[in-house]
Amino acid sequence: MMLETTIAAIRPADEAAMAAARELHGRLTKPAGSLGALEDLSVRLAGLAGACPPPLPEPAAVAIFAGDHGVHAQGVSPWPQEVTGQMIGNFLAGGAVVNAFARQAGASVTVVDVGVATPLPTGPVADPAGLDPAGTDPAVLDPAVPRLVVASVRRGTRDFTVTAALTRDEALAAVQTGIRIADELIDAGAGILLTGDMGIGNTTPAAALIAAFTGADPLDATGRGTGIDDPTYAHKVAVVRSALARHAPDPADPLGVLAAVGGLEHAALAGLILGAAARRTPVLLDGVIAVSAALAAAAFAPAAVGAMVAGHRSAEPGATLALRHLGLDPLIDLGLRLGEGTGALLALPVVTGAVRVLHEVATFDSAGVAEK
Amino acid sequence: MMLETTIAAIRPADEAAMAAARELHGRLTKPAGSLGALEDLSVRLAGLAGACPPPLPEPAAVAIFAGDHGVHAQGVSPWPQEVTGQMIGNFLAGGAVVNAFARQAGASVTVVDVGVATPLPTGPVADPAGLDPAGTDPAVLDPAVPRLVVASVRRGTRDFTVTAALTRDEALAAVQTGIRIADELIDAGAGILLTGDMGIGNTTPAAALIAAFTGADPLDATGRGTGIDDPTYAHKVAVVRSALARHAPDPADPLGVLAAVGGLEHAALAGLILGAAARRTPVLLDGVIAVSAALAAAAFAPAAVGAMVAGHRSAEPGATLALRHLGLDPLIDLGLRLGEGTGALLALPVVTGAVRVLHEVATFDSAGVAEK
Repeated sequence: MMLETTIAAIRPADEAAMAAARELHGRLTKPAGSLGALEDLSVRLAGLAGACPPPLPEPAAVAIFAGDHGVHAQGVSPWPQEVTGQMIGNFLAGGAVVNAFARQAGASVTVVDVGVATPLPTGPVADPAGLDPAGTDPAVLDPAVPRLVVASVRRGTRDFTVTAALTRDEALAAVQTGIRIADELIDAGAGILLTGDMGIGNTTPAAALIAAFTGADPLDATGRGTGIDDPTYAHKVAVVRSALARHAPDPADPLGVLAAVGGLEHAALAGLILGAAARRTPVLLDGVIAVSAALAAAAFAPAAVGAMVAGHRSAEPGATLALRHLGLDPLIDLGLRLGEGTGALLALPVVTGAVRVLHEVATFDSAGVAEK
Repeated sequence: MMLETTIAAIRPADEAAMAAARELHGRLTKPAGSLGALEDLSVRLAGLAGACPPPLPEPAAVAIFAGDHGVHAQGVSPWPQEVTGQMIGNFLAGGAVVNAFARQAGASVTVVDVGVATPLPTGPVADPAGLDPAGTDPAVLDPAVPRLVVASVRRGTRDFTVTAALTRDEALAAVQTGIRIADELIDAGAGILLTGDMGIGNTTPAAALIAAFTGADPLDATGRGTGIDDPTYAHKVAVVRSALARHAPDPADPLGVLAAVGGLEHAALAGLILGAAARRTPVLLDGVIAVSAALAAAAFAPAAVGAMVAGHRSAEPGATLALRHLGLDPLIDLGLRLGEGTGALLALPVVTGAVRVLHEVATFDSAGVAEK
């Protein structure tokens, strides 16, 4: 099985490479420890790569997994479900925030339909700017041309307040799509993968996943998503609570948890993370959807955490619970709650900078600078 | 007087441009408020520029002011004073962390000697990589060629535990050098200035400035700089306390404060900030040296705060006191305490991204995306 092969390929960090990175940091022309969290990050990435310095995380590739959610019928979001598909059109036209940030960072954008409910936009899209949304075959990592991959498992999950969101086979198919996308992007040369997501209502399954994997109370794991009023928020918490009570998902069975209360984009993101980890390639996590998927990935393979870099701390409270459970400190904390991969993209230069130091900075000896 | 003219040119934020930016944010294809602090930042920069959208902050120019400190004789730093000049050699050779980060960000680096004690390196520098440290006349904003400007006011300050660090005229000369550098960089086309500094021992005058301007106790304003042991730290606090007791600087007289307990690079940075503010150009603050200088700039002209963007929260405790006094929230908080402009450079993509959203993101209407 592809999932099992992937999990089996995930190795613990290379301690020798980490020690070499720590030793190199001590010789570079800066006070010891003065780069704070960047030093720790560069050491982790050396451990992941098994090399000091680790390769620069270039080029960067954002993978946006899009899906819809049966639980949307419960009124957990004020946005119509059609917006998921409409935003795919916006991504392919280059008009979304993730596109603006990706252009700035020189990152490619791959949009993967793993389960959008409505037909994808086929007509003209806004401001196409010469882009061909899905027709041709652009280079996989071309940052100028967002790319659409259609890998729909089903047109949205089932309402998990009524039945399991997915069958185990459906959840597995989505996980394997994520692994396949990771392999494709890394085969094309990507040095780092960034998680992205789109799915109206998808903070509700994220909250359920976080509660299931961390044991947190649904009240603590659930946030206001795109912005909901107090009655809708109370209802959303109740929806998560009732789903967990109905399905009693076992955190030791991550595929079962994803099937019971997850989403197709959450399952695919778990696969992307596992695929990156198996290839010793860093995966930069975006917000609450990403970290809920990361909990599933860590449940499949604890050593996968070594490939994860937490891009930012989402304003969603569940994200902080998930990051704590994973033992990850986010690089950026600016109150973002947009998703799409935007928070990961903002953090990308920090990751690249952390690695660049090990490549480019002179030593005290080579620069003729005295030590203390 | 150039300082007075500069101060007189600093205007409050343009409320109409800020309102236009807030209104535009409400129409872009993202949930309202979902970009958190980036939305507030873009609104502030619209107010500074008097335009919505404000110009993209490009190209970026780092100005590293370097100076030495008479108080170094009191044993407040474990590093020899010669390191200041040696690090200038490293900057010009492109070997320092600030160079690595500036190359990544496409930012130019201008090193300004406002008061280095030792002769600058004239011989071969480490890994010159084809660069000519100071001989030729590279384009002012060329990111590939670090540039040296010699504008030394005196070869280091006096020991302020014995006498004032500078005369008022010396402090004024350094401030005006900072204004001149701001004008030169902005005239050359810079869209944003980044503060940088180098000076062995310069966290001691920074602590004194922060205590003088905020009223904080020297124990709270003083940090461990590049890393000092407990006895040296206690001595450093005592040095700051005795200097403040000796000079009793008046925070309403910023030139007097800079002269009594400041440094030449601190005074020049205050000038750079004032110069940027007068030209309605954002200035991205680095760490504790920058924010101590920013306090002086704000004392000269309170509206100058409108041009300031806090790049990061330095690990130095005084930086947090200064940021609070200025009412600024930092963009990055990763425990950095290196200086040079490194923290500002890490934050630059966040600033650019915040503005880019207003330029490039589609509206709900133009993208055909439904609203909630």
